[in-house]
Amino acid sequence: MIDETVAQANTKPPETTQAELLAQVVEHLDAGRRDDIVEHLEAAHAAEVADLLESLPPDQRSGLWDVIPAEQEGEILSHLRDEARASIIEEMDDVELVAAARSMAPEDLAEVIEELPDERHTALLQTLDGDHRQRLQAVLTFGQNTAGRLMSTDVLSVRPDVSVAVVLRWLRRHQVLPPHTDTLMVIDEQGHYLATLGVDRLLTSDPQAIVGQLMRQDTVVVRADMSEHEVAALFERRDLISLPVLDQEDHLLGRITIDDVVDIIREESDKVLLNRAGLDEDEDLFAPVMPSARRRGLWLGINLMTVFLAAAVIGRFEAVLDQIVALAVLLPIVASMGGIAGSQTLTLMIRGLALDQIANANVRWLIGKEIAVGALNGIAWAVVVAFVAYLWFGSTGISVTIASAMILNLLIAALAGVLIPLGLKRVGIDPALSGAVILTTVTDIVGFLSFLGLATVILL
Amino acid sequence: MIDETVAQANTKPPETTQAELLAQVVEHLDAGRRDDIVEHLEAAHAAEVADLLESLPPDQRSGLWDVIPAEQEGEILSHLRDEARASIIEEMDDVELVAAARSMAPEDLAEVIEELPDERHTALLQTLDGDHRQRLQAVLTFGQNTAGRLMSTDVLSVRPDVSVAVVLRWLRRHQVLPPHTDTLMVIDEQGHYLATLGVDRLLTSDPQAIVGQLMRQDTVVVRADMSEHEVAALFERRDLISLPVLDQEDHLLGRITIDDVVDIIREESDKVLLNRAGLDEDEDLFAPVMPSARRRGLWLGINLMTVFLAAAVIGRFEAVLDQIVALAVLLPIVASMGGIAGSQTLTLMIRGLALDQIANANVRWLIGKEIAVGALNGIAWAVVVAFVAYLWFGSTGISVTIASAMILNLLIAALAGVLIPLGLKRVGIDPALSGAVILTTVTDIVGFLSFLGLATVILL
Repeated sequence: MIDETVAQANTKPPETTQAELLAQVVEHLDAGRRDDIVEHLEAAHAAEVADLLESLPPDQRSGLWDVIPAEQEGEILSHLRDEARASIIEEMDDVELVAAARSMAPEDLAEVIEELPDERHTALLQTLDGDHRQRLQAVLTFGQNTAGRLMSTDVLSVRPDVSVAVVLRWLRRHQVLPPHTDTLMVIDEQGHYLATLGVDRLLTSDPQAIVGQLMRQDTVVVRADMSEHEVAALFERRDLISLPVLDQEDHLLGRITIDDVVDIIREESDKVLLNRAGLDEDEDLFAPVMPSARRRGLWLGINLMTVFLAAAVIGRFEAVLDQIVALAVLLPIVASMGGIAGSQTLTLMIRGLALDQIANANVRWLIGKEIAVGALNGIAWAVVVAFVAYLWFGSTGISVTIASAMILNLLIAALAGVLIPLGLKRVGIDPALSGAVILTTVTDIVGFLSFLGLATVILL
Repeated sequence: MIDETVAQANTKPPETTQAELLAQVVEHLDAGRRDDIVEHLEAAHAAEVADLLESLPPDQRSGLWDVIPAEQEGEILSHLRDEARASIIEEMDDVELVAAARSMAPEDLAEVIEELPDERHTALLQTLDGDHRQRLQAVLTFGQNTAGRLMSTDVLSVRPDVSVAVVLRWLRRHQVLPPHTDTLMVIDEQGHYLATLGVDRLLTSDPQAIVGQLMRQDTVVVRADMSEHEVAALFERRDLISLPVLDQEDHLLGRITIDDVVDIIREESDKVLLNRAGLDEDEDLFAPVMPSARRRGLWLGINLMTVFLAAAVIGRFEAVLDQIVALAVLLPIVASMGGIAGSQTLTLMIRGLALDQIANANVRWLIGKEIAVGALNGIAWAVVVAFVAYLWFGSTGISVTIASAMILNLLIAALAGVLIPLGLKRVGIDPALSGAVILTTVTDIVGFLSFLGLATVILL
């Protein structure tokens, strides 16, 4: 009945890795072999093509985009990160953009349209047909980064008083279920959400059973205004595939599925990684030089101010530096060790805060612990540094100075590592963004101040 | 037929956030109110209880563990991170551990048992009943961090020549499907994988249709030895819920589901964040002081060596420092700016490599771009620094020196930011682990060397 050789021929893992695909596409692009590229693209998922586009410098990126069939453009656009997407949309004319927009789900289109310059935004809205525009505008009423923005309105719902047999007959007429349908939603006549009915219950229950007896009323639900961070935490902790989204009056609005949640988790982790270096989480590695230089320059400027502050601290101690040149040689050590120790504490705090593991109930214990860790490591490495410094410069005074400064700086670093992220969070600033700059400013200044200050007292 | 008030009473979002739950549990723990805690725990998912345990200092952690009902222990253990889990298992006696192990799926137990000290490992293996032990040993034959370790063997499979009606009758006898069953596996008599049959096809197809006509042969499959990183990338790019796992002869071994993939994505992002600060991704924020200090001390020691190296560079220029004390004041600026600029490039490279976006085909373009960005920012900020230094010290020589050193260091930083992660990857070292230390060592040394070296030439 079925051809097993055909079936077996398909049981292959994906033959080309993303890196190989990239190499092949670049080769074809350089040689101008469009047909070969199209062939590669046909086998690839939209997210993989998006990844390819993000891996190409500007010229090759437009070259590849030109080859992509129009009907795939919408789906690929929805998988691109903001900055790479903007670089592509900039080159699309309005006709092409509208065609792509038509094939996009409203929740994906909402994300794209908000990034457009005002005049293109308006033009695009006007060209959409009525139904599509209405659904898009419904999505846009929800705040950014909320459950309402994430959800799909493509939901199957049933009434509680019908039988499994009726539901199955209805599904057979439906033919295609929305992606990732693990549950149907049970609603009343007014559209109020009542419960979920697992697809597994449908498959395993007696066809005569009634939905109301099979449905699960203890499914967690999400309000449309819940933040996407909370939504993601809920999916992650409870191993969910989909969740119903309700308004304040319990009307069913839509459902959120795990694939969108995976994207959020990825975005949040990119954010933590890139923000720390003063980069936007959508930063395009292959953006042209000028915009990249401008964006990164700002962060360098902030750093320059903090390092001038540190230099000013050193400047207060010209007298002692003038007399003992060894101090200038040892200057980076105390500050650097403080920065490293403090950033260990800060990093753990940032993760703890992201996982909601830190609360008033345990902060006091945490401060005590971190100070103890700082003291132990401060003392241990101060002994080493004092010993090396003595071997190098043969001065007990310098050894005592650098050892004391180091212990002090590691204690302050521990305290700063706990308190800076807590303080930033309290005033509504993401600690992953500016925590590290503030921390190293503190440990630099305390490092220079304690080392040179103690030197002035002890050595002069 | 159904009571709508009851249904509506349950359509609430989770009432307590994780932080509130933590506060409440700590309060009950301190007051010794075990019953109240049990009540809270009943409403919580195992992953949430695991998160709670990870949020508690050692004493409170054991206090809470004592309250947890024995039958929940296995599931909670499987959700804990390695280090926190080890702290709890250390306090469990063998009887308790065996009881917990009995309720764990083989793939979860494999992870736990490998972390145990040898004698407990052996003791636990011997106490497991035959079937459970065999399934566990089967999992342990696969390498760590491979698909074989991730997969569950709890799979529903059908033959291609039966009808939908037969499958549905069989499922109804089954009663409970494995979690996250979005597809059944179609296999031949020898257990060779042929294709998948989506649950949606089962629901929407004519009961008389034959599985072989409905099944999808183009589903991606995974080999048992594929790395979990590749598995996760596949799920993420293709929005999957589950995938079949096969051996080299196409026998169906099991399936991997999205919930495990979400855990991997989370682990990988923790790794990038924590490794950068010299911390293990399983580092327990609430571990006791001594082990924390020991682990972090090692990283401080590595840093100390690199900073001594930098100090040695400064030491070579005692002559010029002795004559011009302003150099000591300005010393941190060039090194710091190089470190910041280099770490921006490094961070983008680490993400690009993690996403497989970097290949031979685009490295050359990338190096050119990063050097151009470094040159632009180097020149721009060098002008600012030269101006400020002139106002401060009134010396054109110092201004020219620091400006030239800064441009040079930002160029080297850009090059190092691209080449260090590529080099580390080539020799099999994770760039997220040691990239930043090596980079700042380079930018520190080049910073000090260029600034003081140029000063010697220009100013002496």
